[in-house]
Amino acid sequence: MNQYEKICKDMGQRAKTASFELAQLDQETLDSALLAIADAVEAQTDEIMAANELDLEKSVDYNLPRTMIDRLTLTPSRIALMAEGVRQVAALESPVGSIIETITRPNGLIIEKRSVPFGVIGIIFEARPNVTIDAGVLCLKTANATILRGGKEAFHTNQIIVSIMRNTLESLGINGDSIQLVEVLDRDLVGVLLQQREYIDVIIPRGGAGLIRRVVEDSSIPVIETGSGVCHTFVDEFADLEMALEIAVNAKVQRPSVCNSMETLLVHQAVAREFLPRLNIALLEYGVRIHGDEAVAQYMVNTIPLTEESFSTEYNDMDLNVRIVENLEEAIDHVNRYTTHHSEAIITDEPMRANVFMNLVDCSTVYHNASTRFTDGFEFGFGAEIGISTQKLHARGPMGLQALTSYKYFVFGEGQVRT
Amino acid sequence: MNQYEKICKDMGQRAKTASFELAQLDQETLDSALLAIADAVEAQTDEIMAANELDLEKSVDYNLPRTMIDRLTLTPSRIALMAEGVRQVAALESPVGSIIETITRPNGLIIEKRSVPFGVIGIIFEARPNVTIDAGVLCLKTANATILRGGKEAFHTNQIIVSIMRNTLESLGINGDSIQLVEVLDRDLVGVLLQQREYIDVIIPRGGAGLIRRVVEDSSIPVIETGSGVCHTFVDEFADLEMALEIAVNAKVQRPSVCNSMETLLVHQAVAREFLPRLNIALLEYGVRIHGDEAVAQYMVNTIPLTEESFSTEYNDMDLNVRIVENLEEAIDHVNRYTTHHSEAIITDEPMRANVFMNLVDCSTVYHNASTRFTDGFEFGFGAEIGISTQKLHARGPMGLQALTSYKYFVFGEGQVRT
Repeated sequence: MNQYEKICKDMGQRAKTASFELAQLDQETLDSALLAIADAVEAQTDEIMAANELDLEKSVDYNLPRTMIDRLTLTPSRIALMAEGVRQVAALESPVGSIIETITRPNGLIIEKRSVPFGVIGIIFEARPNVTIDAGVLCLKTANATILRGGKEAFHTNQIIVSIMRNTLESLGINGDSIQLVEVLDRDLVGVLLQQREYIDVIIPRGGAGLIRRVVEDSSIPVIETGSGVCHTFVDEFADLEMALEIAVNAKVQRPSVCNSMETLLVHQAVAREFLPRLNIALLEYGVRIHGDEAVAQYMVNTIPLTEESFSTEYNDMDLNVRIVENLEEAIDHVNRYTTHHSEAIITDEPMRANVFMNLVDCSTVYHNASTRFTDGFEFGFGAEIGISTQKLHARGPMGLQALTSYKYFVFGEGQVRT
Repeated sequence: MNQYEKICKDMGQRAKTASFELAQLDQETLDSALLAIADAVEAQTDEIMAANELDLEKSVDYNLPRTMIDRLTLTPSRIALMAEGVRQVAALESPVGSIIETITRPNGLIIEKRSVPFGVIGIIFEARPNVTIDAGVLCLKTANATILRGGKEAFHTNQIIVSIMRNTLESLGINGDSIQLVEVLDRDLVGVLLQQREYIDVIIPRGGAGLIRRVVEDSSIPVIETGSGVCHTFVDEFADLEMALEIAVNAKVQRPSVCNSMETLLVHQAVAREFLPRLNIALLEYGVRIHGDEAVAQYMVNTIPLTEESFSTEYNDMDLNVRIVENLEEAIDHVNRYTTHHSEAIITDEPMRANVFMNLVDCSTVYHNASTRFTDGFEFGFGAEIGISTQKLHARGPMGLQALTSYKYFVFGEGQVRT
């Protein structure tokens, strides 16, 4: 057994042990721990800022892009917001222990399907220290132990946050191994971690497409794939074009860096001539670059010619592909060819056409006459979000607390045997 | 692209196309197709028998064990039962399209969480031709396309069954590619199939531990792990020993070859002296071989000494490990060390002790005062079963029709945008 295997097995075993202890705590105890963590995080704002400063100094060596530095940077008010987020999670109702269904059988057996924690959840993410606290806290809320592996760019910040959470737990008599941070940053160790099927029940990667693909390919532990979003909006020939314009602009520019923003707009040929020039004017105001073919260039100025990859690209920026389609079928085919199974929208006044589109496009969340930007645990009213699943197994779309639980059948008998 | 990749991609593409067509059919059409399949299977009993005969002739070359030959052998009455099973599935209510939850948001968005088919399901199984028809039919019922890969031992039988199903579908104007059989039996092709994440949405392996481990390790497609069962029964010091005896005998001998039968009995030391000799007598009648240590040998005759592997072995036969434990905690620790996360039972008259055991053992289904033999889709009242999941993601325990669906959020707006 090499050194990495030793480290991973040891972390796995300790997490598993902690998970059994967490499973025995009542919700009140877990929620008090969350509140204590919120207080401790605020009380240690200076220490967190100092650690964050170390990471920011190093970010020059890492050549981090501006947006990433922005995500990495903490301020006292951002830390206060983090603490506030923890308090909000403490106030949520936990699904753990709730009875999903009761089946009474003719032979008298009573079968209760109850929500239970997964046990140990591994979270692999990039340079966003807010994920460290969010993930640790959401898992703790649902009585799961966590193994966190964050990006090297946020290493010192992650270290102090995890250490605050662990110390708080221990001061309350709760096993500190409930939240562990991987401190060896060699990628090879992640590969070994992804084989610890005996100890880790599920892996949730959060980050860019590359990270997610690597985790999906390397893991023998079940994975919940999250995140990448090439989202489409189809403006149908029967669309209210005023509404279509407002939704399209919102889906593109309101926050282009996130996964539920629009990357491609499809427009029915019958309304292209009327709609595209107006869209062009509206988007120019925000500096959006339009990628389109010659047909699109007839109606929009300064278009960038499409390349082979355009329709598969998640720009996460002020870029938009535009394509004119012949009919509804071509729109559906385009979406299903390029979808990352995240969020898609149709704008139309014809409910039957909306119905066909909504049933046939293969994605987690499909919209009729609304912006794709709503695919979000808070916007769905979950009060929390651990990520957005783009796979079909277990959880799909925004994942709240329920997605962090499994279920278990509790069967109560009086001596029944099978005949 | 090598030949196997070509075959797998082609099957995958055709299945995906069929899955979109299936998603547009109403339940009545799907159910009529199931009834037509049932009729066709019965009508072609002679052809199925002839193909089965070919497989049985070959079974000599394969050196198949008796139990496997028994599972492989079809008779007209077994074929009639298969058809009857299909008719029962046709009569079940389908979860597809049902609304799981409706969320109305303050901004007026209406979010419907609806059951939807997975799309394409791959089923990899061994020499049981009944799985061919069961799996094909359960997937069809839930509007999923299927790719079936059965064992070489049942090749001709599988071929004729799939061809009857496909011909029936085509005669009704339904895409025959809704049910496909892998006809190249080289194992390397399975490895390639397990990489077709673009086309196959989920893989369900059904068979022995070796098959399942291989699929879990090789697949980049999400897998629902099924089946292997090292099930325990713990006879507590506060057990009704009469009841314990009846349950233990049932769990061991009623059908030892299946995954929910008992492989290990744990008994509290306080009742070992009273219970084990009685158990010994009861089990001797069925020829059960007892594997135990010296402590056990004090109370039971003709015990076979335990080896390193005994507690991890799924005998699927008239063999039973027996161990005396000090207390409840030791029983729980033993179970959690050796469990395959299938089914476990405690026999006790103390509800608080049952509660501790039931919460802490890590398995799909946990019993208080009943036999583990009830872990079964039909015994749970599901009316069907595609397998028993031993993982925590998506489905756990007996999987009925619901386990063959995912969900999708349908969001209805009136022009809402995010601010």
